[in-house]
Amino acid sequence: MHVRAFIGEMEKIAPPDLAEDYDAGKIGLVVEGKTDISRVCCALDATPRVVRQAVLASADMLVVHHTPLWTPLTALTGRVAGLMRALLSAEMNLYVMHTNFDRAEEGVNDALAELLSLEDTEPLALGCIGTCTLSPAEISKRLGGNVRIWGKITTCSRLALAGGSGFDPSLLDEAYVKGADVFLSAEMKHSVARSSPLPCIEASHYCLEAPAMQRLAIKKGWQYIDDPPLLQTIP
Amino acid sequence: MHVRAFIGEMEKIAPPDLAEDYDAGKIGLVVEGKTDISRVCCALDATPRVVRQAVLASADMLVVHHTPLWTPLTALTGRVAGLMRALLSAEMNLYVMHTNFDRAEEGVNDALAELLSLEDTEPLALGCIGTCTLSPAEISKRLGGNVRIWGKITTCSRLALAGGSGFDPSLLDEAYVKGADVFLSAEMKHSVARSSPLPCIEASHYCLEAPAMQRLAIKKGWQYIDDPPLLQTIP
Amino acid sequence: MHVRAFIGEMEKIAPPDLAEDYDAGKIGLVVEGKTDISRVCCALDATPRVVRQAVLASADMLVVHHTPLWTPLTALTGRVAGLMRALLSAEMNLYVMHTNFDRAEEGVNDALAELLSLEDTEPLALGCIGTCTLSPAEISKRLGGNVRIWGKITTCSRLALAGGSGFDPSLLDEAYVKGADVFLSAEMKHSVARSSPLPCIEASHYCLEAPAMQRLAIKKGWQYIDDPPLLQTIP
Amino acid sequence: MHVRAFIGEMEKIAPPDLAEDYDAGKIGLVVEGKTDISRVCCALDATPRVVRQAVLASADMLVVHHTPLWTPLTALTGRVAGLMRALLSAEMNLYVMHTNFDRAEEGVNDALAELLSLEDTEPLALGCIGTCTLSPAEISKRLGGNVRIWGKITTCSRLALAGGSGFDPSLLDEAYVKGADVFLSAEMKHSVARSSPLPCIEASHYCLEAPAMQRLAIKKGWQYIDDPPLLQTIP
Amino acid sequence: MHVRAFIGEMEKIAPPDLAEDYDAGKIGLVVEGKTDISRVCCALDATPRVVRQAVLASADMLVVHHTPLWTPLTALTGRVAGLMRALLSAEMNLYVMHTNFDRAEEGVNDALAELLSLEDTEPLALGCIGTCTLSPAEISKRLGGNVRIWGKITTCSRLALAGGSGFDPSLLDEAYVKGADVFLSAEMKHSVARSSPLPCIEASHYCLEAPAMQRLAIKKGWQYIDDPPLLQTIP
Amino acid sequence: MHVRAFIGEMEKIAPPDLAEDYDAGKIGLVVEGKTDISRVCCALDATPRVVRQAVLASADMLVVHHTPLWTPLTALTGRVAGLMRALLSAEMNLYVMHTNFDRAEEGVNDALAELLSLEDTEPLALGCIGTCTLSPAEISKRLGGNVRIWGKITTCSRLALAGGSGFDPSLLDEAYVKGADVFLSAEMKHSVARSSPLPCIEASHYCLEAPAMQRLAIKKGWQYIDDPPLLQTIP
Repeated sequence: MHVRAFIGEMEKIAPPDLAEDYDAGKIGLVVEGKTDISRVCCALDATPRVVRQAVLASADMLVVHHTPLWTPLTALTGRVAGLMRALLSAEMNLYVMHTNFDRAEEGVNDALAELLSLEDTEPLALGCIGTCTLSPAEISKRLGGNVRIWGKITTCSRLALAGGSGFDPSLLDEAYVKGADVFLSAEMKHSVARSSPLPCIEASHYCLEAPAMQRLAIKKGWQYIDDPPLLQTIP
Repeated sequence: MHVRAFIGEMEKIAPPDLAEDYDAGKIGLVVEGKTDISRVCCALDATPRVVRQAVLASADMLVVHHTPLWTPLTALTGRVAGLMRALLSAEMNLYVMHTNFDRAEEGVNDALAELLSLEDTEPLALGCIGTCTLSPAEISKRLGGNVRIWGKITTCSRLALAGGSGFDPSLLDEAYVKGADVFLSAEMKHSVARSSPLPCIEASHYCLEAPAMQRLAIKKGWQYIDDPPLLQTIP
Repeated sequence: MHVRAFIGEMEKIAPPDLAEDYDAGKIGLVVEGKTDISRVCCALDATPRVVRQAVLASADMLVVHHTPLWTPLTALTGRVAGLMRALLSAEMNLYVMHTNFDRAEEGVNDALAELLSLEDTEPLALGCIGTCTLSPAEISKRLGGNVRIWGKITTCSRLALAGGSGFDPSLLDEAYVKGADVFLSAEMKHSVARSSPLPCIEASHYCLEAPAMQRLAIKKGWQYIDDPPLLQTIP
Repeated sequence: MHVRAFIGEMEKIAPPDLAEDYDAGKIGLVVEGKTDISRVCCALDATPRVVRQAVLASADMLVVHHTPLWTPLTALTGRVAGLMRALLSAEMNLYVMHTNFDRAEEGVNDALAELLSLEDTEPLALGCIGTCTLSPAEISKRLGGNVRIWGKITTCSRLALAGGSGFDPSLLDEAYVKGADVFLSAEMKHSVARSSPLPCIEASHYCLEAPAMQRLAIKKGWQYIDDPPLLQTIP
Repeated sequence: MHVRAFIGEMEKIAPPDLAEDYDAGKIGLVVEGKTDISRVCCALDATPRVVRQAVLASADMLVVHHTPLWTPLTALTGRVAGLMRALLSAEMNLYVMHTNFDRAEEGVNDALAELLSLEDTEPLALGCIGTCTLSPAEISKRLGGNVRIWGKITTCSRLALAGGSGFDPSLLDEAYVKGADVFLSAEMKHSVARSSPLPCIEASHYCLEAPAMQRLAIKKGWQYIDDPPLLQTIP
Repeated sequence: MHVRAFIGEMEKIAPPDLAEDYDAGKIGLVVEGKTDISRVCCALDATPRVVRQAVLASADMLVVHHTPLWTPLTALTGRVAGLMRALLSAEMNLYVMHTNFDRAEEGVNDALAELLSLEDTEPLALGCIGTCTLSPAEISKRLGGNVRIWGKITTCSRLALAGGSGFDPSLLDEAYVKGADVFLSAEMKHSVARSSPLPCIEASHYCLEAPAMQRLAIKKGWQYIDDPPLLQTIP
């Protein structure tokens, strides 16, 4: 398939218009390689290990959620140089879907809701809220463990969730007003936890967002490359 | 003691000049009450519970690390109104030491280093680095548990630490260059963890900073009011 | 009446949409007190004297034109601390209508036009213009005296007026083009007076805006608290 | 005298370094005419009437306090075009001294202090403070009348003054701390009057600043052109 | 004709709405003179020589493409003072059409296309593209010579052109995509030439834009004043 | 030689401190390759042709004057992707000296002055001025021809020059005041030419700056790769 046709397909899956303004120039075809795409790999981040495996798999295209070129750069040195060398030498394309995939149908938040068997979901400004039949311990288990619980959870029948770094005061207020019992996201800040109107489950960024990439890979017949950060918890 | 004299003493403990620029207008006497200070309470945050206890203790002055008036405001409503009502009605003063206390001698980072029996410490741009004889499990224990470990810790004889939210890429690089084996701080971000040059221990913001406030209270004969966020971990 | 219902009524009187952009966050419920409103006071400014009298009158709500929290603040000290203490301790609400009330029907400019018996008024970008049958001396008298006249008034049959600080060059030009003989407002600047296309009557800010608050109080059955600045003129 | 030499003399009288930053590009030689200067006129403002009289007087140079080109312009139309035509056609130079003359020795504030027989003066951030033997009525008389008094003057033995528009809250505080009983300046604002720590005398901008220009003209043997705004007060 | 009527006619020729945002305040009546217009001169730039000739021709109005007041000014000195003196003393109006005339029908680009006998033209974001039957040498000849050719021209049957300084990378890309063989404009930059997707002919700014002013003068019966910069080429 | 040592040597030749602020992050090691440097190539620009030849020459390091990563980027596509692929695949380093080399001893302007046999040179804010014994035709010849002359050159005994794009009004004024007869630089703008106080010779950017790179290559024993833009002039 020509890379233009591939991009056309991707833009149906995660329309660029859905992205936040701060993603401008940081989604879509972020590294340009071969024009002919036959083998595709998929991962959450374009880490050195992921790129190495994609090269071994002779991929022409790597689809990820987080761009490795977030900060605009005028020099290619250190870690970024190594990563770009691996991609460009292999003429591998790198395609990024970020907040547009968070919001897309069957995107990050939909996949997470499904993983947690959420029902009757309705959207939040970011993420969604739905009926939950799992206990916090079961939620933790489905997410691979290593979660932290802020505040006291008495019931968890209405769960709000936002993949990625979603512990924003206004989002917490919105979820609270809409009847959430618990809010699930990643990267809690002290000041936010202190004044949160509802208890929160903090999981890792990776375990909240990777399921959507994995589901997409399965659906499209791509190779999914798993590369979770090494994380361990001491209670 | 007159409030002016009290402020003079505090400015010796944590000189305002040491503060970051972003703390301008947000440290020092943040709520003005009685001019005569005889009873002082001390806490990490001015939470409703802390203020309530300080009122019960008939405090004239409450000393904290985090200002409750961080965002400049043109209206007193909701949570902030309640907090200000409690303070102003009681004519209680509120005094804030933030990044100036982080950097002060016997301040946040010094107290944390002492808690962890760090030796031969030398300063970093923020926080410090020193020789450590504790294992990660022992570190976790002294911090009250609930820590997360990012990456693989092989040895922990040189520990870098930064009280508060200190997982900054440039700070991690500095610690790495200075020979640190592990970096201890709070509020890890996914993107930072992914490219950290060394393994990290992520504790709660509270447990890293509260020891300094507690030590100060003991030293000055003030009442320390403990109010940790409710935090629990599922491994 | 519940405070929410009260606010709803006020937003009909002075719709927030009418306000200038610079009033964002500085109008509406500016200090939050009791939820149940039975006694309302009204004044132009929330001065210490006005708040004191409102407290004596056991008001649950004070409605004013000028917010006392104009400059965004990160500390409550000095005069502002005293004022907020008085309001919060009494659990009194403070509601502000500013440029939205200037522009509202029966608002600041309408009340001023009525006070001066202006007829056939038509709106300006700010304020209005109309047919006037009073002499400058009579205008001064109705405004309580203490006015200054810039330039030479030959006739005053078409009077333009803008409550508050309205001597703006573009507004003066607009009034001139629309046939005004004289422009009435407050807070004249030297550079504006020097190049004004028409003679001006400068009254005090207070005497131009207070009539509207007083009329509103009468209409709504609230207690109006008069607190003009002490002003005296030596010709 | 060559215009360069004339400018050199002026820069001794009012060193450009003394000016506020906002005067950058707006003081000094603001309109360039003949290089040879033999006849000089002087006024507070470059009004059409002033320029006309300077032309009649065959002046080569007009020295004023306020530039007529305050707002940066990309077109010469209307009033400004007329003024520039009169100056340029006559090849008259226009020289401006503004905040540098306010602060200069024998400048605006010194001249005003002398006019009011102030003694033992010491400088403020802007203006000065000194011992005063005049009553408010006598002050008004020396200033040509038309003054407004804000607040209640009980005594006036320590008078603070600032030529021009000097009713700034921080300046009022400074004067108050330094023991002033009364503050004299021009262009009072309602919000400033409301919270002023001391009573104020508001005179016209012109009558506070013109004396310095007149004194300079006398000293240098130039023709002073008086052009006060037409101002009248109804008590 | 009254100057208002004249301006009305000009705004039909080059509607102000067509201008780029950066032309705001810099087009239209830029120097205001007599209200009655009977004699009009026209030129590309308001140079001293052009203004001198317009004065000799007793013009009431001078129409040009480039404003002499591009940089907003707070002083009239040096070259600008001389130019403004000449215009204002003669009460001559100065009218500017800039990017609005570039884009106007029969404006800068249309006149240039006609001069080069371009056919089947279609517009670009700036300038146009059309079928060309001239060789580069013939193009140079019609433009008065002194052109530089960047890159290798193999054929020139589709010519893109932009009067003025139009060598912009995005414009070059647009022309390339639309099938241009060559791009003609003025003021080439090294970095642009290095990565241009097609060869370029660089002529002088003057020779590209003057034809439109000359054509307009002829059409309206005005006197055209030619004042090209002295330019000579050493191959 | 280790790349660190190489950079150390380069920073003696063109100290980074000499660079303009806008070069921050755009000079020095701009693409990172091998750590061991044995073969160095040198050119003015990192064009595709230059990089290709450097690869053929098995260079470990390419030293240029203009960075190919001027605009900060968040994607590697199109031309830039091709260039980076060629450099990174070959593990070639790219080192940039820009305005720091313009100002360095034996840098861009010194080399140009020597090429034109300028004597008794003294520095300008940018570039230099010196005694010249060549005619404009001889200057053109030494620069490889293709120059344009703006204005009328009567004598050329004092020549001012600035390598690169140096036709700046303030620089022209400085050269004029210092007695220059002619100013030599690249990339003349119409508005600058119109008001230049002295005649100008406009050469290509390349021919003014390449000599310094070539001289440096000879001195250091590197291979110089010449790649002038294709430029031809029709008088």
